[in-house]
Amino acid sequence: MMGKTIKLVVAVGGNALEEKGLPPTAQSQREVVAKTAEYLAQMSKDGYEMAIVHGNGPQVGRILLASEAAKEVTPVLPLDVCGAMSQGYIGYHIQQAMRESLAKRGRNVPVVTVATQVLVDANDPAFNNPTKPIGPFYSKEEADKLAKEKGYVMKEDAGRGYRRMVPSPKPKRIVEVDAIKRLWDTTITVCCGGGGVPIIEKNGVWYGVEGVIDKDLAAAELAQELEADILLILTEVEQVAINWNKPDQKNLAEVSVAEMEEYIKEGHFAPGSMLPKVQAALEFVRSGENRTAVISSLKEASRALKGETGTRITR
Amino acid sequence: MMGKTIKLVVAVGGNALEEKGLPPTAQSQREVVAKTAEYLAQMSKDGYEMAIVHGNGPQVGRILLASEAAKEVTPVLPLDVCGAMSQGYIGYHIQQAMRESLAKRGRNVPVVTVATQVLVDANDPAFNNPTKPIGPFYSKEEADKLAKEKGYVMKEDAGRGYRRMVPSPKPKRIVEVDAIKRLWDTTITVCCGGGGVPIIEKNGVWYGVEGVIDKDLAAAELAQELEADILLILTEVEQVAINWNKPDQKNLAEVSVAEMEEYIKEGHFAPGSMLPKVQAALEFVRSGENRTAVISSLKEASRALKGETGTRITR
Repeated sequence: MMGKTIKLVVAVGGNALEEKGLPPTAQSQREVVAKTAEYLAQMSKDGYEMAIVHGNGPQVGRILLASEAAKEVTPVLPLDVCGAMSQGYIGYHIQQAMRESLAKRGRNVPVVTVATQVLVDANDPAFNNPTKPIGPFYSKEEADKLAKEKGYVMKEDAGRGYRRMVPSPKPKRIVEVDAIKRLWDTTITVCCGGGGVPIIEKNGVWYGVEGVIDKDLAAAELAQELEADILLILTEVEQVAINWNKPDQKNLAEVSVAEMEEYIKEGHFAPGSMLPKVQAALEFVRSGENRTAVISSLKEASRALKGETGTRITR
Repeated sequence: MMGKTIKLVVAVGGNALEEKGLPPTAQSQREVVAKTAEYLAQMSKDGYEMAIVHGNGPQVGRILLASEAAKEVTPVLPLDVCGAMSQGYIGYHIQQAMRESLAKRGRNVPVVTVATQVLVDANDPAFNNPTKPIGPFYSKEEADKLAKEKGYVMKEDAGRGYRRMVPSPKPKRIVEVDAIKRLWDTTITVCCGGGGVPIIEKNGVWYGVEGVIDKDLAAAELAQELEADILLILTEVEQVAINWNKPDQKNLAEVSVAEMEEYIKEGHFAPGSMLPKVQAALEFVRSGENRTAVISSLKEASRALKGETGTRITR
């Protein structure tokens, strides 16, 4: 690999931005991001050119929560705007923390946040079937009122109350990809935060829509458009497993697309958990020659990129 | 001017983002920004390469207001984070609106938002003298409580209640300038929103500080670092005037730095209003050869750039 720069898109999950048990303050997020940045900066030190995609679930949830709690004093913000705000918030922390971690390693690579819109299909079937819970919990009465007044789709969530459900359409195009491409070889870009703000086109005009794009799918789309070499999807576990949590659990190291497709058919991966990550990985690997997807944990990411652990999916 | 591209940094004020009398909703901001974008897109059509700097006062005020009103349900966000969020929010709207206005003019120039941090001096005297009111109004009792509990500097504001005052340090360096430079010739960048998030360095580590950088001064610093040809500062009036609102009012068209300095000494420009704009313009013009600052209104901006109106300051 010496002499050749490897282009890497890395998708970090919510656990890289906050830890259970800590208060959900900005200060606490900044501290957790500082730990995350240590691992990401090491990848840069190892020679990868990087774009960083991050989740935003808890952050956008709190922005919405604050906006709704304050509705008597200032108008409630729509979800697309809350998403754009969360990109500014999280990107800012990642930039600061990355600079510090890079400096420790003698690296002076700029890190910038590019606010990202992602074009989705206005006819995406997801719009008819909202599946993604967002924002605060409501009582049955509040939920009925919101459904009536605002047309929200409300759904009971595991006995904890009612939540608003929004669609999760598929990413079709990363709007700011040209800028990200131009920055790529000199700059680490933080982009597609929270999956990007979903945009639809109607008669040539773009509109933000109230929905949430899966951040791993957005990272896969970004990696395709950037013609990256590797898509690294970080999660809680070091390796993807089949027969998970059973006596015959088997961790996967090197897997082909065809093998993964078979495992999906056999129902090995949980919907809403490992399945979308595996699907995002496959989207990328299928999209071109010599494209590799790696799934591993943040802590083992550097080793996973070297092939020492993690799950590596190739054609 | 044919054949030569002119590099322009344009600073738009709060009135370009919202109109008095309209509700302060995201929808209404999007509509006002659509009108503003018509003028900005025309400049791009006229052949200028552009970076757009915008204010964020009312927006960051409402983000803070919502955050404080919601403090029982989710932790209050610090001002630096609110500033970063407002950059995401406003930049997103400017990008969408600009795309539409550019398309109408047959221009397919990408527009991106670069979240911007601005380094300030930790020893800036402004930190000892907070002058910038921010966020909601409080009663005397609430103000005393905040001063005691959080160390906020609170000040009575023209009989309307008490407000928190924050420092307004001078911008020293635009952190993301390299990325903005690389994008400059292909892309319109929205950056330094609200003057940028102020950052100080302590022992090599960067920290966000609770303060507000004057957006016109930030635009002047950006224009210097980008080696722009023109800094265009937009305001309510078509031209800067001396003896303003008096029988002998005289609008200024072509002015030298020395003349402007004389007018400042004579007290022609109101502090907190036209004075900081004139000072920002002078900072830029003084900083190098062949640098021009233009002050005018949004509606007359294109004519002002052609020298048909506006106030043009040169060495």
